[in-house]
Amino acid sequence: MTAYRDLEDRFRRLAILGDATAMLHWDMAVMMPPGGAESRGDQLAVLRVIHHEKMTDPALADLLDDAESGAADLDDWQGANLGEMRRQWSHANALDADLVEAFSKICSTTDMVWREARPKSDFAAIRPHLEEMLDRVREIASRKAAALGTTPYDALLDEYEPGGRAAEIDRIFDDLAGFLPAFIERVIEHQAAEGPPAPFAADIPEDRQRALGHRIMEVLGFDFHHGRLDTSAHPFSTGTAGDLRITTRYSTADFTESLMGVIHETGHALYEHQLPADWRHQPVGQSRGMALHESQSLLLEMQAGRSAEFIHFAAPLMREILGGEGPAWSDDNIQRHYRRVSRSFIRVEADEVTYPAHVILRYRLERAMIAGELAVADLPGAWNEAMGELLGITPPDDRRGCLQDLHWYDGAWGYFPTYTLGAMIAAQLYAAADQADSAIRAGVATGDFKPLLAWLRRNVHGHGSRLSTAEVVTAATGRPLDPKCFVHHLETRYLDAG
Amino acid sequence: MTAYRDLEDRFRRLAILGDATAMLHWDMAVMMPPGGAESRGDQLAVLRVIHHEKMTDPALADLLDDAESGAADLDDWQGANLGEMRRQWSHANALDADLVEAFSKICSTTDMVWREARPKSDFAAIRPHLEEMLDRVREIASRKAAALGTTPYDALLDEYEPGGRAAEIDRIFDDLAGFLPAFIERVIEHQAAEGPPAPFAADIPEDRQRALGHRIMEVLGFDFHHGRLDTSAHPFSTGTAGDLRITTRYSTADFTESLMGVIHETGHALYEHQLPADWRHQPVGQSRGMALHESQSLLLEMQAGRSAEFIHFAAPLMREILGGEGPAWSDDNIQRHYRRVSRSFIRVEADEVTYPAHVILRYRLERAMIAGELAVADLPGAWNEAMGELLGITPPDDRRGCLQDLHWYDGAWGYFPTYTLGAMIAAQLYAAADQADSAIRAGVATGDFKPLLAWLRRNVHGHGSRLSTAEVVTAATGRPLDPKCFVHHLETRYLDAG
Repeated sequence: MTAYRDLEDRFRRLAILGDATAMLHWDMAVMMPPGGAESRGDQLAVLRVIHHEKMTDPALADLLDDAESGAADLDDWQGANLGEMRRQWSHANALDADLVEAFSKICSTTDMVWREARPKSDFAAIRPHLEEMLDRVREIASRKAAALGTTPYDALLDEYEPGGRAAEIDRIFDDLAGFLPAFIERVIEHQAAEGPPAPFAADIPEDRQRALGHRIMEVLGFDFHHGRLDTSAHPFSTGTAGDLRITTRYSTADFTESLMGVIHETGHALYEHQLPADWRHQPVGQSRGMALHESQSLLLEMQAGRSAEFIHFAAPLMREILGGEGPAWSDDNIQRHYRRVSRSFIRVEADEVTYPAHVILRYRLERAMIAGELAVADLPGAWNEAMGELLGITPPDDRRGCLQDLHWYDGAWGYFPTYTLGAMIAAQLYAAADQADSAIRAGVATGDFKPLLAWLRRNVHGHGSRLSTAEVVTAATGRPLDPKCFVHHLETRYLDAG
Repeated sequence: MTAYRDLEDRFRRLAILGDATAMLHWDMAVMMPPGGAESRGDQLAVLRVIHHEKMTDPALADLLDDAESGAADLDDWQGANLGEMRRQWSHANALDADLVEAFSKICSTTDMVWREARPKSDFAAIRPHLEEMLDRVREIASRKAAALGTTPYDALLDEYEPGGRAAEIDRIFDDLAGFLPAFIERVIEHQAAEGPPAPFAADIPEDRQRALGHRIMEVLGFDFHHGRLDTSAHPFSTGTAGDLRITTRYSTADFTESLMGVIHETGHALYEHQLPADWRHQPVGQSRGMALHESQSLLLEMQAGRSAEFIHFAAPLMREILGGEGPAWSDDNIQRHYRRVSRSFIRVEADEVTYPAHVILRYRLERAMIAGELAVADLPGAWNEAMGELLGITPPDDRRGCLQDLHWYDGAWGYFPTYTLGAMIAAQLYAAADQADSAIRAGVATGDFKPLLAWLRRNVHGHGSRLSTAEVVTAATGRPLDPKCFVHHLETRYLDAG
């Protein structure tokens, strides 16, 4: 047990160091004056180096070996904790310091060039950098694959979705890709027959939108004693269980975006808030992965937040706090705004129905690039072809095509599938919660989210990283992840009454 | 040179770790929700432990020895840098980890008890904690004295005012203490004959005060590309040269406090901003100490900011931005508000003339306590007696007496004298600057602070920690610190025209 206890101390420090880093990232995005970028870069780099030094300390490897040889004495949680320690260690130790540094430089450069190239739709400018990026990512993938005993793509995926397997995702996404094109067509026809919702017309000032966001966060169970809502260019959620920081952005011309954005980020925050307190700062006490994290934001935003019963509850608050009047502000018209489906080029602006097509496209392309089956030079063409197949539209330029997302240009390969896995898990969890306890949907209809949060704490949040994502889904819903559940949700909401 | 270069790398990381810590402190005071205190405490403790580990690494001691034996190869700046490394190392290594931890706990506990005891004026409740605190502080002082080769009090002082000596401060403060009581009496009589200034009457909303603060910061040369102004319970200044964070607080009933507070903190920030960029993150590139730091805030606030010429320049901005009208808002009446002198119990509310009496009192008492000549039990009596001698008033209770300041209850012993040393240095520097370049005062009169900032960069800021405080003062003004200069400033401002 001595080795295990020592590991707990060391990983506790590493987790807290990670928390400090997260707060500095929050400040950078929300508060920092632009001229602070250089010194903030120094601070983040030093914390990263210290983290890496501690993670690659040879004494840590010895302790892991010792603890694993005595693992029979550990209880379930401790055993899972040790497993997570080893997983984190394997990721950190699979790469030597030179490769880490080289990759970090390529990421900075490519990110920088991308910021210039995207608005100009200049793929040629970014191409050599992306090629170098892909070479390095493939090198990293093969090193990590050797360390983890997985395929190269799965090794990348494991950083975001531990235990995730592309073979399984292929099956699920192929299923969905077979369903979506025809379904999208039917929904669009259905909505065309109804005509568009009445526009809200008036601009809504930022302070009113913020007040509505605050009010809705309180309804959802967000405790402002333990968190804040702020503004940033790209909405995100970070912080610790006791100090949750979420952000949104406001468009005076369209309040609907910031409101659902706030609900989305609150879902992320409540997951962090309800993680097992006894295991705080231990690997097993941390959130399971990005798919489950996204499922928690989408469960609040898409499942509960856009349900007819919640919009019926929230619409009077919108009218009151935003000062909305007239037919455009009826419950029904507000709901129709939140359910508009259209084919569009940009993922982050896509609706619930078309979003998975954007994700499946990216997942397939990055899989092919990592496998060496798609060259960077052929990316724009492959992108546009896949958009045609999945969504029936062709981007007029690369700005609205393969240049739109930061991920590949910033080194985040293996991340994309978690968005749609999250959406599917959210649908399956919410259906199971509804079946398990009728008070949950009734609470959503009256602005009482306590029954839902209690169910999530028991079935998802409270597990931390003790179970795999697949185990969490099976234990909570009685069956493995099943695309039919998500499909059923889409059909009910977009073609029936819902 | 190899050892020296290695030291530069190590101290660079330590400085950047300190910058990260400073940003987390800023967030804690300005942004953090109250429920974040526990996790922030964890983060700060882990960063402190890492800093201490790196500072007490035996390899660092070897490198210092090596570099010192080859010091002949170093240039002036490098030599001074090595000296500062050794000084920082001596402070960190004088105490073993157990003493550091025990002291840290006593500080937390005493601080917590003090927060309860102060409003209730309950000295009995804090007394045993303060006794334990004093025991530990004396132990720390004697260990550091042995390491630094100073007296125990000077060893504490050295943390805040490197190279400072109590024997010298005694001489300077005794001189001032001999002058102040009669002078205060004369000023109060003089002002009584004039009658009080006309009150401003109207409440000034916070947003207008903030707008005025911003405007005046721009006038002073603060670059908002590299900094922010925010609100906190206790005003302070922190951050890095590229990311300066200052705070103030607003009273709608009295705008004068926040405006001069902003000027004061801007003085601190501009010192940090103008430190030698070539030595950023090295010990020699950091600010010299708290006396010189305070001299920079007081030079802007007391010397320039309350000068007749600056008030004449700023008064129209105050009227315009705050919406002030009528005789109370005349230049002359505003100036009289900023120069009111009165005997009061609370240091942080004291005016320029009585402030040094508050500081001298605290300095003498902490000197006596560290020397073992004053017992904690006798502190309230000694405090009240000294207030009678220096200011001619007796606090009605300990809340307005020896319980008012956090410093002793938070472990900051040896800090107090730097306030008044700073005020005296400010007077001497400003007089020298005025003599050296007539454009400086002319610039203050027209809102152009560039000549003053250029002089300060050349004579103070740009030296970093290459020279001692005494050397900076002598080089900049042609003579050592001389109380007559401060006395002359007070006499001119408060009894002549000014």
